[in-house]
Amino acid sequence: MAEEKKYRVESDLLGELKVPAEAYYGVQTQRAINNYHISRKKMRDYPDYVIAIAYVKLAAVQTNHALGTINDEIAGAISQACREIIDGKLHENFPIDMMQGGAGTSVNMNANEVIANRALEIMGHKKGEYQYCYPNDHVNCGQSTNDVYPTTIRLAIIRMNKTLVGSLTGLISAFRYKADEYRDAIKMGRTQLQDAVPMTFGQEFNAYADNLEEEILNLERNVKLLHEINMGGTAIGTGLNAVPGFAKLCAANLSKLTGESFVSSPDLVEATPDTGAYVSYSGALKRLAVKISKICNDLRLLASGPRCGLHELNLPPKAPGSSIMPGKVNPVIPEVTNQTCFKVIGNDTTVTFAAEAGQLELNVMEPVITECLFESLWWLSNAITTLTDECVLGITVNKERCYEMVKNSIGIVTALNPYIGYKSSTKIAKEANETGRSVYDLVLEHKLMTKDELDKALDPKEMLESHKFLTKHLSSN
Amino acid sequence: MAEEKKYRVESDLLGELKVPAEAYYGVQTQRAINNYHISRKKMRDYPDYVIAIAYVKLAAVQTNHALGTINDEIAGAISQACREIIDGKLHENFPIDMMQGGAGTSVNMNANEVIANRALEIMGHKKGEYQYCYPNDHVNCGQSTNDVYPTTIRLAIIRMNKTLVGSLTGLISAFRYKADEYRDAIKMGRTQLQDAVPMTFGQEFNAYADNLEEEILNLERNVKLLHEINMGGTAIGTGLNAVPGFAKLCAANLSKLTGESFVSSPDLVEATPDTGAYVSYSGALKRLAVKISKICNDLRLLASGPRCGLHELNLPPKAPGSSIMPGKVNPVIPEVTNQTCFKVIGNDTTVTFAAEAGQLELNVMEPVITECLFESLWWLSNAITTLTDECVLGITVNKERCYEMVKNSIGIVTALNPYIGYKSSTKIAKEANETGRSVYDLVLEHKLMTKDELDKALDPKEMLESHKFLTKHLSSN
Amino acid sequence: MAEEKKYRVESDLLGELKVPAEAYYGVQTQRAINNYHISRKKMRDYPDYVIAIAYVKLAAVQTNHALGTINDEIAGAISQACREIIDGKLHENFPIDMMQGGAGTSVNMNANEVIANRALEIMGHKKGEYQYCYPNDHVNCGQSTNDVYPTTIRLAIIRMNKTLVGSLTGLISAFRYKADEYRDAIKMGRTQLQDAVPMTFGQEFNAYADNLEEEILNLERNVKLLHEINMGGTAIGTGLNAVPGFAKLCAANLSKLTGESFVSSPDLVEATPDTGAYVSYSGALKRLAVKISKICNDLRLLASGPRCGLHELNLPPKAPGSSIMPGKVNPVIPEVTNQTCFKVIGNDTTVTFAAEAGQLELNVMEPVITECLFESLWWLSNAITTLTDECVLGITVNKERCYEMVKNSIGIVTALNPYIGYKSSTKIAKEANETGRSVYDLVLEHKLMTKDELDKALDPKEMLESHKFLTKHLSSN
Amino acid sequence: MAEEKKYRVESDLLGELKVPAEAYYGVQTQRAINNYHISRKKMRDYPDYVIAIAYVKLAAVQTNHALGTINDEIAGAISQACREIIDGKLHENFPIDMMQGGAGTSVNMNANEVIANRALEIMGHKKGEYQYCYPNDHVNCGQSTNDVYPTTIRLAIIRMNKTLVGSLTGLISAFRYKADEYRDAIKMGRTQLQDAVPMTFGQEFNAYADNLEEEILNLERNVKLLHEINMGGTAIGTGLNAVPGFAKLCAANLSKLTGESFVSSPDLVEATPDTGAYVSYSGALKRLAVKISKICNDLRLLASGPRCGLHELNLPPKAPGSSIMPGKVNPVIPEVTNQTCFKVIGNDTTVTFAAEAGQLELNVMEPVITECLFESLWWLSNAITTLTDECVLGITVNKERCYEMVKNSIGIVTALNPYIGYKSSTKIAKEANETGRSVYDLVLEHKLMTKDELDKALDPKEMLESHKFLTKHLSSN
Repeated sequence: MAEEKKYRVESDLLGELKVPAEAYYGVQTQRAINNYHISRKKMRDYPDYVIAIAYVKLAAVQTNHALGTINDEIAGAISQACREIIDGKLHENFPIDMMQGGAGTSVNMNANEVIANRALEIMGHKKGEYQYCYPNDHVNCGQSTNDVYPTTIRLAIIRMNKTLVGSLTGLISAFRYKADEYRDAIKMGRTQLQDAVPMTFGQEFNAYADNLEEEILNLERNVKLLHEINMGGTAIGTGLNAVPGFAKLCAANLSKLTGESFVSSPDLVEATPDTGAYVSYSGALKRLAVKISKICNDLRLLASGPRCGLHELNLPPKAPGSSIMPGKVNPVIPEVTNQTCFKVIGNDTTVTFAAEAGQLELNVMEPVITECLFESLWWLSNAITTLTDECVLGITVNKERCYEMVKNSIGIVTALNPYIGYKSSTKIAKEANETGRSVYDLVLEHKLMTKDELDKALDPKEMLESHKFLTKHLSSN
Repeated sequence: MAEEKKYRVESDLLGELKVPAEAYYGVQTQRAINNYHISRKKMRDYPDYVIAIAYVKLAAVQTNHALGTINDEIAGAISQACREIIDGKLHENFPIDMMQGGAGTSVNMNANEVIANRALEIMGHKKGEYQYCYPNDHVNCGQSTNDVYPTTIRLAIIRMNKTLVGSLTGLISAFRYKADEYRDAIKMGRTQLQDAVPMTFGQEFNAYADNLEEEILNLERNVKLLHEINMGGTAIGTGLNAVPGFAKLCAANLSKLTGESFVSSPDLVEATPDTGAYVSYSGALKRLAVKISKICNDLRLLASGPRCGLHELNLPPKAPGSSIMPGKVNPVIPEVTNQTCFKVIGNDTTVTFAAEAGQLELNVMEPVITECLFESLWWLSNAITTLTDECVLGITVNKERCYEMVKNSIGIVTALNPYIGYKSSTKIAKEANETGRSVYDLVLEHKLMTKDELDKALDPKEMLESHKFLTKHLSSN
Repeated sequence: MAEEKKYRVESDLLGELKVPAEAYYGVQTQRAINNYHISRKKMRDYPDYVIAIAYVKLAAVQTNHALGTINDEIAGAISQACREIIDGKLHENFPIDMMQGGAGTSVNMNANEVIANRALEIMGHKKGEYQYCYPNDHVNCGQSTNDVYPTTIRLAIIRMNKTLVGSLTGLISAFRYKADEYRDAIKMGRTQLQDAVPMTFGQEFNAYADNLEEEILNLERNVKLLHEINMGGTAIGTGLNAVPGFAKLCAANLSKLTGESFVSSPDLVEATPDTGAYVSYSGALKRLAVKISKICNDLRLLASGPRCGLHELNLPPKAPGSSIMPGKVNPVIPEVTNQTCFKVIGNDTTVTFAAEAGQLELNVMEPVITECLFESLWWLSNAITTLTDECVLGITVNKERCYEMVKNSIGIVTALNPYIGYKSSTKIAKEANETGRSVYDLVLEHKLMTKDELDKALDPKEMLESHKFLTKHLSSN
Repeated sequence: MAEEKKYRVESDLLGELKVPAEAYYGVQTQRAINNYHISRKKMRDYPDYVIAIAYVKLAAVQTNHALGTINDEIAGAISQACREIIDGKLHENFPIDMMQGGAGTSVNMNANEVIANRALEIMGHKKGEYQYCYPNDHVNCGQSTNDVYPTTIRLAIIRMNKTLVGSLTGLISAFRYKADEYRDAIKMGRTQLQDAVPMTFGQEFNAYADNLEEEILNLERNVKLLHEINMGGTAIGTGLNAVPGFAKLCAANLSKLTGESFVSSPDLVEATPDTGAYVSYSGALKRLAVKISKICNDLRLLASGPRCGLHELNLPPKAPGSSIMPGKVNPVIPEVTNQTCFKVIGNDTTVTFAAEAGQLELNVMEPVITECLFESLWWLSNAITTLTDECVLGITVNKERCYEMVKNSIGIVTALNPYIGYKSSTKIAKEANETGRSVYDLVLEHKLMTKDELDKALDPKEMLESHKFLTKHLSSN
């Protein structure tokens, strides 16, 4: 008897099942809870996910109401239930594992059931009295998992992408700030890890910033692809059971609700199994990860030392670096960021496998695509924010050491090519390397240039950009 | 003495080396020939590669001439040499291995040397008389490998991409043709490999075509990124030794020569080590490969049988299928295409590794990026053309069999939801499955709908799109 | 004043920091808590991880005690603290994020601090009174993160591998059970998705079982590599600060404690940065994932239908398959398993990146290797158990349908090669294909064999193995 | 009429086709030549491939002869033809593209046809007179592509693996040689790119050698898996058309012919589609690539400079490093090696995709697995030999610079832990870092140790291993 209060019994194609009495979800969600114990990560762990499906369901009910397929009372109750989810009131009712079979059916049914039961309450009924509002016939009216699920994923990614872009914007600003702070700090540029020619830390940090600005554009280019949706396609894109006009109107409603510009795919049969936009977006995350990782590699290399490395930079110390080596401080923030990037890259492999595995009218592997994209988005946002706040903003440059290295380098001989030719420059460089002497002294000794010319050509500041006097010099030849 | 005729001796930083007397290339190319024996694939195996660097060198000499840094005679000779390469006259002189160290220096020097020696001849000198036209000082004037090489790769990819798009256009046309041929052939749609609801082969083939149309757009979106070049950046993007104005003018010249719209990167220090555009383009190739592979999987599945499979399609026989099983015919063309796609996907992993491995002011791993992108482009173009000509154009559909399967299916019960509700439909489906009987008979037997209604609702043609009478039916409830 | 009770203040190289008064961990763990907010996954989420490091620390203190570098009292207290962790009493004190920089220093210091503080209590002191038992000087004596951390990871994987092998053993048994149940169920074998020659479901399921048996061997082969440890190498493998004999004795102690056969690496400098064993073990997980995924693909394909697919198998229904298509049941368990396999494959890419990124005397990317291996182990164990219990054990075969397909096939003509030759068989097959007639009738019609011979040769049971009468037939020619 | 001399006409299931008159291959090879234009790489480009299939065919005919299914004359002729191929006399007759559909049928038929035609000649007939020796009935007797092809691939890999192990042995020897040459060269060890504690180049180079020795073992462990073969399984492993005893005897014959220990798979149905051994072997190649790449990264880092980098090592100069920077010399050999490793890693992704794509009784994607493994084997062997000969053997160490860095480092404070404790050591390290002063001076100034003790503890040579006096010191406390 006590148990009757704790559970209600629901039934479906497979028979009866107990559902916790207080749960807004129903029998099919309960089956998913029972079936999937893979990852310990749940749908509700990503609030944007739950909010996204509520928006999709709200747009759908508005569409059904406008097209006359759902009446005022039910439409009103469903709408209110959706809005409560959007407001975060029912998130706990989305407990299913992120890893699941069924191509998202459990996610869609979870939403259908929560919304139906909450709508029932709103209409004055009890949970489970589906005769008044049925998860499939009413909440899912004119829909199928195969259009609801991809549309939901898209909206969730669009939302999470904003968070990522926010993190990235912060990192770019941090590099711009540092570029400004060290705009005059001359340092050696290196190609292939060998001394090349001089540059400034202003140029270096600005290059990082510019490099990452492109990633904001790239994310936006790719997130745009996610704005094409297939609502109204139902099971396989033929629109069976959706009334004419549903597709376009639903896209318009979802746009209005979210402020995003969704369009209905021109070929819903094509759109239903298509995972191209996920592959592209995953590729954009991967490209960002590749760049962030490269930058972290650079930071760790430039901060190497303190006495047996390049030691051009100091990263803010975040932890004693060793359980055995006193005083050691390691670049732990770039390190954790590198590793996060590797995970994003690995997730892209998973997405590729899942995308290739689609068959015929549906890609059944979308849940793992979802899991990977959400994980990559979340981790990368966290890592970039950490990198910005705990590392980049606190970077300091060892200006004197950097300047000394430039002055002492052989690479500056490059600047003499236009005056003495590549062949003579090569001889000077070779002699400098063999004797340990300076380029400056050797050029004078060999009387290849006057001291005045040489001072001008080897002024580090002159080497930081195309020089105007070079034009003059060359055209006079 | 005979040997003196067969070789000439050149020298560089490392000393003297023999070069074949008739070779247009010089000492540094010879070193590369000696150093790299990895892949048996040579630069000249990709004519677009050789042509691309000749265009870049031609644009550079035009720029130098206009800016006054190379005189009329030398500029004229260099230009003529470049044009001869573009015309395919000197391709044999580019024999270096595609796999190489040095970040492309061997490729750049190969071009510098061939052009210099040919220019010397044009000016009436002998090969090797570099005092009149020096590979580094004249042909490479205002340039570095680090701007020439990425610009060359970009132009080569842009050219090869046109070939790929051409192949793809052919495949799309073939699917459109088949869609038209079989626009009325009704067949069962399948999701998760389970019978779903009806569709036509017109819809199926059109969906493939639409799906691949997006790839043309996607390739173009990504190839566009390759139009930003870094000529004028020289060694590390600071422009050392290039005269002011070189960058923009060179981009303009290259655009005029090739008909492509190149722009000079706004931050040449950023652009020099950046491999973002390659990562994106490789991602686009991968996305195309994923889609082509999925389509080939479908074709093989739909053609399975002939008597123990789906047997909806017949692919044109291309070879006896077995050394032991007489009469067996296998889908060999989709199979080879699948495998080509897997190679493209693997190459994307390689590109990712290479891109991440860039350090500081240069990415030294660009040659393997080049090798992978060129291979993927070439193989994929070949495979797509083969798929079009040897497979898709010859597909025939077993229309009767397809129609019988639809009529006999349980999935058509879906169309009854709007009339009898999901719950009743579920009961009918369950009974049909357990008894082997038809949905049609069961609905009548249970008196859920009139024969007339049922005939209308279950007419396969009505299930191929959103139906208008559905609106009427639903709004009347 | 209230706050003084809630916190204690500890200090390290970077200064002072508040630590919760009741926490057994100390300042360095607190820094890690503050630094790393990436994954929401914590060390304590993997009990095997916490237990493993406690075993390592216990082996180390036993070694130090035996070698005279830690006295009786402290050694006793540290040992007891370790045993309490092994017994699961302090797991909550390991709250740091699985994703972290510092190459595992935070993990090692977390253990050092928890053990020190618990040891202090055991000895009658208060937490934080490190003068009596110092995390670095005593708990970490003769050790470094760079030997403790990899040894811990190895032991944890060894433990988790047992769970995986247990799951796998269950799946193998399930396939053996089904093989026995359906040992006489004749069905068509298929190669390249085309009808080939007959076999039984006994052979099919046994092949799966045999295929997976090899994976147990392969896991064991690879887990064996993890038994070589580098305790005693300290910071970079030179053994600085460890006393002679530490390495071998510690390996022996750890072996005795765990029942595993650990050996000390013969070259500790080599062993310190080496991640080869992880790469191999990740490869073994990947190979298992590839095989499991292939089997799931097969199950889904063989269960396709029910009326428009192969329909040889029925998988137990686990959930209504569609929000729109009544009665549809999808192979959700193989589907979730496929996806889990894709994640394992993606994690292998991450491991590869991390392994390649090692530099000089250490691989700083080990934490993400740990995260990936633990995730793959956990998910794969879960998925395999689910696949066994919720799917394979409930499989039923549609024997009659399978037998009909064999009888009706063309592929059986293969069995006639030895009698009528490949060329004549080809003609029969071709005619059968074009006319839709049976091989049996055509052979008789063309008088190629007597009815008696034909009945013998085409008896499906005769086609299931090498036949003896074939020898007789052939040798009589 | 002239044309009749240049071609002969053959026919198969698909009809007639012209074959070049002089070709030993026949109609099915010709179809493959016509069908596959993907990669420009041909079967004959890998001599080990052609030789391997000849060995397999020889073992098969010996088996058929012994079992009485092929008579003396034909067996003799086939055997001689096989031996001629093994001797390299007919390699040009294997012109089919490495990328192909059909799961290797073209490769098997290519061999069947070449052997049949050569056997016909040996028996005094003309090419094409297959009534005397039929490619399928005689050369392929008791066989199928599905057992011949995987067995061939295995033997080919086994042969190519020997070449790889040879290259690797050379590299290991080179590192041992260098380890001996620089066994006393003290240098700073670095973890996380930060100064750690001292070691020698002897230890460093020996660690590389030891690290790679494990790869020889790992290759051998994995190549061993390739010794299990499935000859006798025929089409799907049931042995249809092979006489009893074929499988075991054929494995024995192949072992005798090749000197390898082949065994017949205990479950031929399992073995036929199984690609596990390829996945493992590809994983072994990948692991080797990961390690070689890491070593190359180290070499490039240690050779960085010459004046603004670590500059501990000098790599032999192989080419002028820059088209613009005179005197620059780049580490081109490690660079090309890194890139080769990335290709091997990418190929492993392709192999994984292909392995996962197997369906039911066969894996049709084996040709791309073959292509990838052969490419990886070939490239990696070439790269390792190049690395050995052109780089490692010529390495020199800048001993003085290395020693100076150690003496001047803070990291050596680690050695003082056992004397003054981690906490005091930390204070010294911190002060050294802030003031730029030496650890040595600070310890004396703070009177933490006597000069005599300090000299002993900080003697770099004492820091290279576990010290004995440490035991004494610690146990006296």
